[in-house]
Amino acid sequence: MKRLVLALDVYERERALEIAECTADYLWAIKVNWPLIIGSGLEIIAALKQVTGLPIIADLKLADIPNTNRLIARKVFEAGADYIIAHGFVGRDSVKALMELGEVIIVVEMSHPGAKEFIQPVTDGLIELANELGPFGVIAPATRPERVAYIRSKLRPEIKILTPGVGAQGGSAGEVLKAGADYIIVGRSIYGSENPREAARRLHDEIMGV
Amino acid sequence: MKRLVLALDVYERERALEIAECTADYLWAIKVNWPLIIGSGLEIIAALKQVTGLPIIADLKLADIPNTNRLIARKVFEAGADYIIAHGFVGRDSVKALMELGEVIIVVEMSHPGAKEFIQPVTDGLIELANELGPFGVIAPATRPERVAYIRSKLRPEIKILTPGVGAQGGSAGEVLKAGADYIIVGRSIYGSENPREAARRLHDEIMGV
Repeated sequence: MKRLVLALDVYERERALEIAECTADYLWAIKVNWPLIIGSGLEIIAALKQVTGLPIIADLKLADIPNTNRLIARKVFEAGADYIIAHGFVGRDSVKALMELGEVIIVVEMSHPGAKEFIQPVTDGLIELANELGPFGVIAPATRPERVAYIRSKLRPEIKILTPGVGAQGGSAGEVLKAGADYIIVGRSIYGSENPREAARRLHDEIMGV
Repeated sequence: MKRLVLALDVYERERALEIAECTADYLWAIKVNWPLIIGSGLEIIAALKQVTGLPIIADLKLADIPNTNRLIARKVFEAGADYIIAHGFVGRDSVKALMELGEVIIVVEMSHPGAKEFIQPVTDGLIELANELGPFGVIAPATRPERVAYIRSKLRPEIKILTPGVGAQGGSAGEVLKAGADYIIVGRSIYGSENPREAARRLHDEIMGV
């Protein structure tokens, strides 16, 4: 089973397509964020799907009122995104508005230091929100495997855990998979490598060996 | 002093420009959100500035790690935005990353029901964050004038309060100004009106009369 997600945080359409194509064999999905979308237009989503045949995760970190969340998500799902990442912090109604339109992945914890101020103190509440709404998955930080293990222990088993932070941010794929992550999100260590295909292959092999 | 902000939540470039142009005389600034940006491209920001001569607020509700916040904001400020709206709940580092690039407005409370779950309980912490970082302004809900008064009482006086929720969502311009708001953000009641210019003029007059 493929468990590697490429965080395609590059901003030029041609480079994005090139890296996606040469690494696709080792990926479960490709994650795109706002900088690529505003740099290349929403059409980049369909282009990436066409070139790779893989699911596309739109990492929008949506955090608006239900109506605005809905208006944004509708356009992004129409453009071909398979999953949208949204914040649970804005409450159930804002997340529900998205889940009526397509598959959602909810942030329950983040990897940067500032996440400790307001998000980590309510991670339990965000897990509860996820258990109640039943999204495809949640985002948890690969930089803190003990938190991934904690989240796994509280989360309904069918909800997937996706973890950014492996590689450049310091997380280890092996550790975070053992802690209960389902998918590993890796950016710089792949697209910043001299040989992205080889970097993706090595990560894929590491994951398969866990 | 003009205190009216048009929330230009329409999605077609031509309509956006037309409404902006005919209402500009009564506005302090124009607020654009992701649906217009992804529908019309970032160029809409410069086009709106050119047509109206007004400041543009990019209501991105940014809520990502510092590096990603920075990458998004850089492109949006470069495109001509004067202010960016961001969430404080992702922590000080994520907000600081934006403030190094331009003027920021921080969400300290929201107007939808889901805001009561996780955001309202930490509004005090978000106000403290704003007082410490000193952004241009904060977002507070026009639908709850008593909360605007509370936020005003805790916030450093030079930090502006901008309030969405007047009109379609039920807030009253007069009440929320008396409660201490500096700027009123109005969308549907203007762009959804048969005569947007006249709707903007009436709101402007109401504001001037407070």
